[in-house]
Amino acid sequence: MSTKIVKVDTKLFKVPLPEVLSDAKHGDHFHFELVTTTITLEDGSKGTGYTYTGGKGGHSIKAMIDYDFKDFLIGLDATNVEEINEELRWHIHYVGRGGIDSFAISAVDIALWDIRCKKLNQPLWQVAGGANNTCKAYCGGIDLMFPIEKLLNNMKNYLERGFSAVKIKIGRENLQEDLDRIKAVREFIGPDITFMVDANYSMTVDKAIKAIEGFKQYDITWFEEPIIPEDFKGYGEIVDKTGFPLAMGENLHTIHEFEYAMEQSKLSFAQPDASNCGGITGWLAAAKLAAKHNIPACSHGMQELHVSLVSSQPNSGWLEVHSFPIDEYTTRPLVVENYRAVAPDYPGVGVIFDWEKLSPYQEK
Amino acid sequence: MSTKIVKVDTKLFKVPLPEVLSDAKHGDHFHFELVTTTITLEDGSKGTGYTYTGGKGGHSIKAMIDYDFKDFLIGLDATNVEEINEELRWHIHYVGRGGIDSFAISAVDIALWDIRCKKLNQPLWQVAGGANNTCKAYCGGIDLMFPIEKLLNNMKNYLERGFSAVKIKIGRENLQEDLDRIKAVREFIGPDITFMVDANYSMTVDKAIKAIEGFKQYDITWFEEPIIPEDFKGYGEIVDKTGFPLAMGENLHTIHEFEYAMEQSKLSFAQPDASNCGGITGWLAAAKLAAKHNIPACSHGMQELHVSLVSSQPNSGWLEVHSFPIDEYTTRPLVVENYRAVAPDYPGVGVIFDWEKLSPYQEK
Ligand SMILES: [Mg+2]
Ligand SMILES: [Mg+2]
Repeated sequence: MSTKIVKVDTKLFKVPLPEVLSDAKHGDHFHFELVTTTITLEDGSKGTGYTYTGGKGGHSIKAMIDYDFKDFLIGLDATNVEEINEELRWHIHYVGRGGIDSFAISAVDIALWDIRCKKLNQPLWQVAGGANNTCKAYCGGIDLMFPIEKLLNNMKNYLERGFSAVKIKIGRENLQEDLDRIKAVREFIGPDITFMVDANYSMTVDKAIKAIEGFKQYDITWFEEPIIPEDFKGYGEIVDKTGFPLAMGENLHTIHEFEYAMEQSKLSFAQPDASNCGGITGWLAAAKLAAKHNIPACSHGMQELHVSLVSSQPNSGWLEVHSFPIDEYTTRPLVVENYRAVAPDYPGVGVIFDWEKLSPYQEK
Repeated sequence: MSTKIVKVDTKLFKVPLPEVLSDAKHGDHFHFELVTTTITLEDGSKGTGYTYTGGKGGHSIKAMIDYDFKDFLIGLDATNVEEINEELRWHIHYVGRGGIDSFAISAVDIALWDIRCKKLNQPLWQVAGGANNTCKAYCGGIDLMFPIEKLLNNMKNYLERGFSAVKIKIGRENLQEDLDRIKAVREFIGPDITFMVDANYSMTVDKAIKAIEGFKQYDITWFEEPIIPEDFKGYGEIVDKTGFPLAMGENLHTIHEFEYAMEQSKLSFAQPDASNCGGITGWLAAAKLAAKHNIPACSHGMQELHVSLVSSQPNSGWLEVHSFPIDEYTTRPLVVENYRAVAPDYPGVGVIFDWEKLSPYQEK
C-alpha cells in the first residue's frame, strides 16, 4: 500500500515575540512555541501539520508524538484521516481527553490533511467544504497591559493593515479601567469598525454582568470568555440576564466539551482552534455542531490555516488574526483584501513553513 | 527562607508487568510507567512524589515537569502546598485542564506532601485527616481476556492474600460472556465475598442497563465506569432506570469534573486517583466533595499511597488494590491484616522507593 505512513518527524521551535504580550490569565508572553510534524508516506508524499502554545507545553507535546504516537502511526494507511484521529484519542485515552494530547493529535491530523489535499490537488478551503475562499477577519491583540496610547496605536496599525474589525483584552482588577479602554478604542475607531472584547475567563458571572452593563453602549459584537470555560451554565446565566452575545471555544479541546457548550452556554459565536481541538478533523466537527445550533464558526489563533477553514463553511464566522505571528514564518503570510482574509489557492493545507527562518529557534 | 525549593529531580521508569493485562478500552498492557519527582529544599529536606500510567504518556509528563514546572517551582516556599497546586494549574492552563498536566501536578504535589508530613513528623493518614489508619480493600484485576479458569485462579490468589473483596473487568463484545464470567466468579467466591465489576466505559447506556438486568442477581456491590466518563448525565440515567450503584472517578482529572459527576451522575462511590487528579491535594478535595454528597471516597491504583488517604477520611470507602504492582518497588509493599489494608506509620507519605530495584527500568 503506497499510502502507508513510513516516517513521522517532529520539531519544536521557541519563537521570540517582538514585544512582551499580556492577558488577564496567562500573564506575560515572551515567545510562542511551534511544534511541527512532517509525515512521509511510502510513495514519498509528505505533509506537514503543526500546533502552537503560548510558551509552555511544547516539549510535552513533542514527547507525546515522538514516544507515544510515532510507532503507532507508522504502517497505518494515511488516507484514513478521521479514523486515525479517533484511534489516537483512544490510544492515549488514559492520560488524554483534552490536554496535551489534543495539541499533539492536532499536529498529526493537520499533516494528514495536508497529504489529503495534495493528493486531491486542491486547496484546503475547497476540500474542507468549499463554501468560499475568503472570510471576515479581525485583529486581536494580547494587549491588556498596554497603556491607552499604545493600545490606540495598535488599533491604528490594524486599520492600516486593511482590517475593519478589532478585538482587545479586558479583565483588569478594576472594571473602570476596562471600561475606559473600551470607550477610548470605540472613540478612536469610530462607529463603523466591528469591535469585540475578550476577558480570558478572568471574571465571575456577577462581574461579567456588571462589565456588560458598562460596555453595552459601545456596540460590542461579542464578549469572549468572560468566565472559566468549565462553567458552561455560567455562560448561559450571563446570556439569560443580559441578552449579550458571548463567544468561546479556544479552550474547548474535545467534541464533548463543544457539546456541553452548545447545549448549555447559549453562545452566539463558536471559536474552535484546530491546533488544540484535534486538528482539521476536530475543527470541522465543532463547526458542524455550531451550524446545527445556528451559530457561526469562528477561529482562534493560527490565521494562516484557519483562513481556509473559516472560509470553507456555510456558517462562516470571523477569523481571528492573532498576535502570535506564525504566518510570518511561512512562505505566505496572511493575505487581506477588501477587509476580508483570502485563503491560499494551492494544493495542501496552505501553510508552508520557512524552515530557514525558523531554524535559529529550534529546541533540541 | 529555609523551606525554599532548590531542586526538582524527575525520573521515568518503564516497569514490565509479569504478564500481559487487558481491559475493554486500553487493550493490552505490557508494562506500566512510573514518573518520580524528588524535591529538595534549601534546608536539605527532601520529598518524593510520583504518578503512573498504563504505558503511555510518561515521557510527556516528565517533559512537562522538566521544562515547564522545574524553573517555576525553584525558589517557591514548599510549605504552600495547596497554593503551589493551584498556581501550577494556572501556569499550565492553556495546554492543561485535565490531561498530562494533571499527572505532572500530582507528582509534584505528592512530593510536597511528603515534605509536609516529614516536617510534622507524622504519617500521611494522620496529616490527611486522621479518621483511621486502616481501610477496606479489594483486589482488582485487569483480566478481561483471561479464560475463566485463569480468572478463578486469580480469585483464589486474592483470597489467599487475605482479601475478602474482588473486582473483575467486564465489557466483552458479547454480553453473555460477561454474565458467564460474573456467574462463575460469584459461584467460586461464595456469597460472603464482596464483588464489583468494571466495564472501563465500553458500553452504551442501553447496554449497561441490559448488563445490570443480567448481573443484579449476583450481589454486585458496584458497577464501575459502564459508559464514557464525559457522559455525566448518562450515569444518572442508568441509575434512574435501574437503581443500581455506580462508581467512577479514575478518569476525572479536575475538581470541575468531580463537581459535574457529583451533581449529575448519581454515583454511589467516588474513586479519585491522587496520581491523576492533582495529587493528595486533588484527592482530598474530591473526597470532601464526595462527603458533601454522602458518598464514600474510594481510590484507583497506587494502593501504597491511597491506603493512607482512604483510611484517613470519615467517609472512607474501598481501597483498590490494583494489578500494577508499584508497591513491590517500594520498601513496604501493601500490608493487609484482618481483611483490611494498613497505612504506614512513619513520617511522610509512606512510599519509599527501592531505587535499586527500579534502576534497570529507568528511561533516558
Ligand atoms: Mg481569546
Ligand atoms: Mg476502573
